Amino acid sequence: MLTTENTSIGFIGTGVMGKSMAGHLLNAGYPVYVYTRTKEKAKELLDKGAVWAATTKEIAEKANVIITIVGYPSDVEEVYLGEEGLVTNGRENTYLIDMTTSTPSLAERIHQEARKKGMFAFDAPVSGGDIGAKEARLAIMVGGDEEIFNQIEPILKIMGTNIILQGKAGAGQHTKMCNQIAIASNMIGVTEAVVYAEKAGLDPEKVLETITTGAAGSWSLSNLAPRVINGDFEPGFMIKHFIKDMSIALEEAERMGLELPGLSLAKSLYKQLADEGLSDRGTQALYKYWNQ
Amino acid sequence: MLTTENTSIGFIGTGVMGKSMAGHLLNAGYPVYVYTRTKEKAKELLDKGAVWAATTKEIAEKANVIITIVGYPSDVEEVYLGEEGLVTNGRENTYLIDMTTSTPSLAERIHQEARKKGMFAFDAPVSGGDIGAKEARLAIMVGGDEEIFNQIEPILKIMGTNIILQGKAGAGQHTKMCNQIAIASNMIGVTEAVVYAEKAGLDPEKVLETITTGAAGSWSLSNLAPRVINGDFEPGFMIKHFIKDMSIALEEAERMGLELPGLSLAKSLYKQLADEGLSDRGTQALYKYWNQ
Repeated sequence: MLTTENTSIGFIGTGVMGKSMAGHLLNAGYPVYVYTRTKEKAKELLDKGAVWAATTKEIAEKANVIITIVGYPSDVEEVYLGEEGLVTNGRENTYLIDMTTSTPSLAERIHQEARKKGMFAFDAPVSGGDIGAKEARLAIMVGGDEEIFNQIEPILKIMGTNIILQGKAGAGQHTKMCNQIAIASNMIGVTEAVVYAEKAGLDPEKVLETITTGAAGSWSLSNLAPRVINGDFEPGFMIKHFIKDMSIALEEAERMGLELPGLSLAKSLYKQLADEGLSDRGTQALYKYWNQ
Repeated sequence: MLTTENTSIGFIGTGVMGKSMAGHLLNAGYPVYVYTRTKEKAKELLDKGAVWAATTKEIAEKANVIITIVGYPSDVEEVYLGEEGLVTNGRENTYLIDMTTSTPSLAERIHQEARKKGMFAFDAPVSGGDIGAKEARLAIMVGGDEEIFNQIEPILKIMGTNIILQGKAGAGQHTKMCNQIAIASNMIGVTEAVVYAEKAGLDPEKVLETITTGAAGSWSLSNLAPRVINGDFEPGFMIKHFIKDMSIALEEAERMGLELPGLSLAKSLYKQLADEGLSDRGTQALYKYWNQ
């Protein structure tokens, strides 16, 4: 069992979400090594008792449970399989948990390479955003070896509430893709409904009062449509990250010989907005496709 | 005030939903005239105390509140503006309430023609389906004169729970279009998520356990995706009716100079299924676009 006595956690990727997640692990009593490029960036966590590591190699040498949540699949590949990487420099019996939203095929590759070195790799992307991370209420979609999963589960429970082993390596990422696929087309429907309401001269807030309660109801309709109506395009989830996720899903679908017209449409609409400089806006800014 | 003493209700369109709705009005103590082409079709309601009318003209002559819920806009036009129609043959101070999902512009026309004759017309389409009608829990989206609305509201409350005056004539229909627009693209997302999950070798039920709870969550994901997974394509709402609604919304959007790529895509996918003979299946049969 991985206890606070026999476990040192390494944490790579202390962005908005990672910072909260590493904080929860510290609060639970685990020693946490944090890798950041410059020490100042880790200050908040170091003040809480984390130990700074100057390289990912150092993390690989010091920690036996390593959690990563970085930006793009290329970052994941570098962090795990690069020269300074966690698998490249890792020790036997280390648990590797990648919580980045990344490609299922890369997750499979990392799992294979890790196994060769006697390490246990999991893909475990999350949903729930900044707030879910802060409140330790993330949904965590896990892919990896069933017989090892129960070892890491208690650690995941420190960061989330809805934690499900979805299958073997890559299954966590595939599940996250299902999540993003469902969101993508729904964002079009939600935005088109608001745009139509305004164009028809309706009061969109009154329209939402009716339609959120029935068969058109969705998280996005209840949470993002009101922001659209109020002209609030601040990012809960940034367009550039959504495009990354949709691109991964479309590549995987293509690899499986699967055509996804709704997802393709969503990506093309968002791509257009990104080309117009809206990459850093929230996904609800799809509204600007109609109203620049 | 429209009381059970001074009010005779006429009801036209006793399909699955209409039958329940007229039944509630009878139970509330109102005299109800029912028009059906053949008397046998109204048997259930006649047994409950309704009075049969052989023509819509007869309804127009006998009732001072007339509720219609028929099939297509062409039926609505015939029932209201045809030779035997309610406006054509109606008396002053009659309240006309069309609960069919129909075109906003026809609703406006009926309202104008009715006003010329001193009648009060409302468009009041519903959502909630068979079950909502049965349990008197329909959402009712009303368009019409604000100063008259409070007169018909008590009668609508006998059939529904979420009743909102959305604006002047046509606004009820426009609101229903917003509802259908939001549903249309979401159905693509929900179905693509299930199709992707299966193709990726995931357990789609487990995937739903994770993704229904977060930002991908929706009524359709919770209620229709499980039916898809279980191979249940029985209609809650039939594809042919959904195509009718999407066609109305697209025509109205075009009239307003509004492009709705998500809705256009949804209609084209459903149209393909209809061409393959699936018109009478439930909307969740969109799944069959991928898996015939």
